[in-house]
Amino acid sequence: MKPGDFEAWVRREQLAVEAALEAWVPPNPPAGLGEAMRYGVLDGGKRLRPLLVLAASEATHGAREAAMRAAVAVELIHAYSLMHDDMPCMDNDVLRRGKPTVHVRFGEAQAMLAGDAMQALAFEVLTPEGDTAVPAPLQARLCGLLARSAGHAGMAGGQAIDLASIGLALNESALRDMHRRKTGALLQASVLMGAACGQPDARAWQALTRYGAAIGLAFQVVDDILDVTQASETLGKTAGKDEHHNKPTYVSLMGLAAARRHALELRDDAHAALADSGLTDAARLSLLADRVVEREH
Amino acid sequence: MKPGDFEAWVRREQLAVEAALEAWVPPNPPAGLGEAMRYGVLDGGKRLRPLLVLAASEATHGAREAAMRAAVAVELIHAYSLMHDDMPCMDNDVLRRGKPTVHVRFGEAQAMLAGDAMQALAFEVLTPEGDTAVPAPLQARLCGLLARSAGHAGMAGGQAIDLASIGLALNESALRDMHRRKTGALLQASVLMGAACGQPDARAWQALTRYGAAIGLAFQVVDDILDVTQASETLGKTAGKDEHHNKPTYVSLMGLAAARRHALELRDDAHAALADSGLTDAARLSLLADRVVEREH
Repeated sequence: MKPGDFEAWVRREQLAVEAALEAWVPPNPPAGLGEAMRYGVLDGGKRLRPLLVLAASEATHGAREAAMRAAVAVELIHAYSLMHDDMPCMDNDVLRRGKPTVHVRFGEAQAMLAGDAMQALAFEVLTPEGDTAVPAPLQARLCGLLARSAGHAGMAGGQAIDLASIGLALNESALRDMHRRKTGALLQASVLMGAACGQPDARAWQALTRYGAAIGLAFQVVDDILDVTQASETLGKTAGKDEHHNKPTYVSLMGLAAARRHALELRDDAHAALADSGLTDAARLSLLADRVVEREH
Repeated sequence: MKPGDFEAWVRREQLAVEAALEAWVPPNPPAGLGEAMRYGVLDGGKRLRPLLVLAASEATHGAREAAMRAAVAVELIHAYSLMHDDMPCMDNDVLRRGKPTVHVRFGEAQAMLAGDAMQALAFEVLTPEGDTAVPAPLQARLCGLLARSAGHAGMAGGQAIDLASIGLALNESALRDMHRRKTGALLQASVLMGAACGQPDARAWQALTRYGAAIGLAFQVVDDILDVTQASETLGKTAGKDEHHNKPTYVSLMGLAAARRHALELRDDAHAALADSGLTDAARLSLLADRVVEREH
């Protein structure tokens, strides 16, 4: 695949995801709730998780509507987690994607409620009534994968560890466990939800599980690197906050150069997994792994 | 059905629900998250929503495991909503079911995360892997009903209206809309999720929808009444807080006597719906409607 073709695909799918979010995040929830929900998710983010869903679905010949619903659902979970994570009782952050955070704009109560409603909406989007758009067994499968990655064993559990680890010196194993849950689980679930929309054989499923684990961890290692190397303006969020909050990171644990090497190793592992997958159309997944590691914000 | 038989059934099923919660709310989520989750839900509450699920499933000859999973899922959603609702940015309540609220005991960040994790866990409980315990199409149906009742069109939307209506004089129509969403939607979903586990015909489904709407609203009318007539010790939560927060209620709108009459009318409507349902085994649902209206806490 030519780089230009990949970039065109990324831009096309980012627009398609934005349009699907526009359509499925309703404008009319009462008392300002809809406004807060839409503010928190309709902001033209990078949409990495949706891109992973769509690429994994394409690689396994999945149905488009199911994959787009899965893409929107994971982005809703991601967006709600940022809204709650930014709140004063958590990271107390005022800037996100270059805009005031949701609680700064709408108040804490509305930010909490909008996040809660967005988690529910994710499962609503996955369960369209009737089963013409998405077959019912696939609806159930997607709900199960998403719930497990978002909950205590995944994202929420990782955030609890994050919260408890401020000021502690974690070893690499504990840091990896935290990052795999906090960020990795939902990224891996994005890949697997996309694959669940298609027809992967056992070998492809196993390879995509490994690919998802590798890029999930790589993403967070790179996040740790960017937090110390980039300015807030580039990131669109407050830079240097890991050090400010005295949080353990890959950079604080192993230094910047070793963290960079580790990110490249994880990218190589993601590529190796795709090579083992038996999938003939995994070029976009491969380039997405590069994108995760080479991103600058 | 003799009253004693009903009371024995209630106690038996409360214990069964407690045991299922014990089994399905894991003790081991990291960094204290599991402790906060279990504190927030394993407290021997009234379990009204699970009782509605189980009674509706029995009345429509539903499978036991599916119904118990649905019962646990709605209780998890209910419990998480209380945890978030009690937080300082919402109702700022320090007492719930006679105990310090979750954020008082574990901190605000942990209360928010535990609530988030419990919403995800509800959908996890509804989607056991493989489809032997619950057929996959029923998993999808239950997830869809729960998501719609918990989200912007239901509970979260009702809470947003509640938040925005402090100090306002709502008319009855606006107050009813708020209560139907905030409390009614999840109570009605409890009935319908139970029925989805069984084999209701269209007439029974319609009747149970009406029954669920009637008891859902009745519950909140009675809540408004109890808030002014009972002491905190009886309620196990802070009494008088609607007036304290200057919230519109059925009592402030129509007075105590009229609110009581309205609750009885709604109970009668619930009974009438059951009489129209064609179901031959709806005695427990009928007695649960009485319980909703006659409860003293």
